[in-house]
Amino acid sequence: MLTALAGGVGAARFLHGLVAVVPPGDVTAIVNTGDDDEFHGLWVCPDLDSVTYRLAGAHNPETGWGLAGETFHTMGALGRYGVPTWFNLGDLDLATHLYRTERRNQGALLSEVTAEIVTAWGIQSRLLPMSDDRVATRITVRSDGTGAPTEELAMQEWFVQRRCEPPVVSVRFEAADAARPAPGVLEALETAETIVVCPSNPVISIGPILAVPGIRDVLAARRDRVVAVSPIIAGRPVRGPADRLMGPLGIEVSCVGVAHEYRELCSALVIDATDAARAPEVEALGVRAIIADTVMRDAGIAAALARHTLAAVT
Amino acid sequence: MLTALAGGVGAARFLHGLVAVVPPGDVTAIVNTGDDDEFHGLWVCPDLDSVTYRLAGAHNPETGWGLAGETFHTMGALGRYGVPTWFNLGDLDLATHLYRTERRNQGALLSEVTAEIVTAWGIQSRLLPMSDDRVATRITVRSDGTGAPTEELAMQEWFVQRRCEPPVVSVRFEAADAARPAPGVLEALETAETIVVCPSNPVISIGPILAVPGIRDVLAARRDRVVAVSPIIAGRPVRGPADRLMGPLGIEVSCVGVAHEYRELCSALVIDATDAARAPEVEALGVRAIIADTVMRDAGIAAALARHTLAAVT
Repeated sequence: MLTALAGGVGAARFLHGLVAVVPPGDVTAIVNTGDDDEFHGLWVCPDLDSVTYRLAGAHNPETGWGLAGETFHTMGALGRYGVPTWFNLGDLDLATHLYRTERRNQGALLSEVTAEIVTAWGIQSRLLPMSDDRVATRITVRSDGTGAPTEELAMQEWFVQRRCEPPVVSVRFEAADAARPAPGVLEALETAETIVVCPSNPVISIGPILAVPGIRDVLAARRDRVVAVSPIIAGRPVRGPADRLMGPLGIEVSCVGVAHEYRELCSALVIDATDAARAPEVEALGVRAIIADTVMRDAGIAAALARHTLAAVT
Repeated sequence: MLTALAGGVGAARFLHGLVAVVPPGDVTAIVNTGDDDEFHGLWVCPDLDSVTYRLAGAHNPETGWGLAGETFHTMGALGRYGVPTWFNLGDLDLATHLYRTERRNQGALLSEVTAEIVTAWGIQSRLLPMSDDRVATRITVRSDGTGAPTEELAMQEWFVQRRCEPPVVSVRFEAADAARPAPGVLEALETAETIVVCPSNPVISIGPILAVPGIRDVLAARRDRVVAVSPIIAGRPVRGPADRLMGPLGIEVSCVGVAHEYRELCSALVIDATDAARAPEVEALGVRAIIADTVMRDAGIAAALARHTLAAVT
C-alpha cells in the first residue's frame, strides 16, 4: 500500500503516473484542503477536484485543472447579479460543487462526500481530505501602501483574484491546531509501505497537510519510508507560485530548499536531472538525492517518475 | 397603479402585454410561490422567474419559461452523482437560483432578493412574492394501487416528475394559515386602481396567493375594482394542467367554472370569444363577462387583451 500527500495539479499528474505502475486500489492520496473556499454558497475543494478529474481522465489537458469540454455559462450569467465572479467555476464542475455542498448541508463529512465523488468517477484509488475540519490557508501580504502596511488574504484571493502579485509576508493555516486528520489518514500513513510527498507547493499545498496535528509526527517516525519529489527545478517551480511563497518565508527556491524543508520527514528526495549538480547539497542535509526526469510532459514520463520515486525507499 | 395576481407562463404573457399599454412602473405583480422548491440545495421560484424572464424579454420563446439560449451542462453532469435530475435547471437559470439561495442564506427575505433580481434584469415593474414565508402546494393523488390508496406529492413532483398523470384527489397549501403577505402586498392591493387576476391556474397558481391570510379579504372588499382573465377556453386550459385539478375539485373546467370560483372576488371576467355563448352563465353568477381574444399568440394580442381587461373595471 502506498500513501501520498497531494496538492493540486502537480500531484494529480504524479498520481496519474503512479497508478500506471502500481495497482490503483493500492494508492491512498491525502489531499490538501487549505485552499477550499465557498463561492456563491458552494463548497469548492480545488485540490481534491484536480486530483479526482485527473485520475478519472476527465481533466482539461490544456490547463491541468478543471474538466475537459468545460463551459462557463452559469458564471457568465451570475455577473448580472453583481456578485464577484473572479473565481471562475465551469458548468460541469459546478455539478461537483452542488453535490458536495448539498451532501455537507445534509450532514455528510467531507471525507464521506469525497469517497462518493471518487466512486462516481470510477476511480479505484482512495482520496482522503487531510481533515474533515475546516483549515484555511491565509496569506499575509504587503499592501499597496495606501492603508495598513499588510493585509491578510484567503488563499484563492491571493492566488486567483490577485494573481499572486501582492508580496507575501507570512502564511498561516487557520484552525489547523484544532483540526483532526480525516478518518483513515493516520492509518494510511502508519501502514503504508511507501509514503510519497508529491511534487506540490511545499508551503501552501503540503504545508497545510503537515499542519494537521499528528500527520507530521507519523512522517517523522516513518522517515525511512518517505520519499518526496521536488516541485522546484532549476530554481523555479514547474508551475504555480511556489517561488513567491518560499523566498519570502526564507526557503531557498531550489531542490536544496525543498530538501531543507522536508529533511526531518523524508529520507529521499527526487530531484530533476537539471539539478544533478546540487545532489551533494541535498545529501549534506541527510536526504538521499534521486535524480530523474521530473517534468511530467506526458503520462509516460509521469509513470517513469513514479517508478523512480518508489524505488528510492524500497 | 395596477396590481396583478400572477402565476407562471400565462401570467407572464399577460403582464408583458400589460406593460405595453400602461407605464411598467405602475404595475405590481403579486406572484405565486406555492410551487417553489429546493433542488440540489438551491431555492427555485418557478413563477417569479417565468415572470421576470418574460418581462426582461429574456425568456425562451419556444417554451415560454426558462431563458433563451439555455444549456443544461450542469444538470447533465449532476446525473453522475446519482441525484434526481428530473427538475431540469438550465445553466443560465442556475445563476438566478445560486444568487437567490446565497442571499437567503445571508438572511435576505425572498421579497428583498426578488427586488434585487428584478432590478438586475432592468425591469421597471415591481414583483412581489405573495409571502416571504414558505407556503408549499401539496397535491394528494390516487396511488397506483400497490400501496396506500393515496399519496401526497409536492407540486413539482406531480407537475414535472409525474407529468400531471396521477389523478388528483385534493390540494392543500401547507403553512398558508401562518403565512403573512410579503411587505407591500396588501398595500398594493388596497391602493390599486385596478386589480387583475391573471390568466393563471385558479387552483395552484392563484389559489395559493388567495390562501395567504388577508389577501382574499382585500379582493372581496375591492371586488368592483377586480377583473380576472379566464385561463380556460372552450373547456380546456390554454396550457398547463388546470383541467386535471379543477375537475377533481368540483370546479367546472370552463370560463363559467372560473367565474364561479372567483365570483366573490371579481366583478368582471374576461372570457375568450370562443366562449361568448357562455357569457350569460357567467353573468348569472354576478360577474360581468367581457369577451376578447384571450389566446396570446403574440405581444400585440397580449396588449389588446390587457387593454380590454383594464377597460372592464375602469
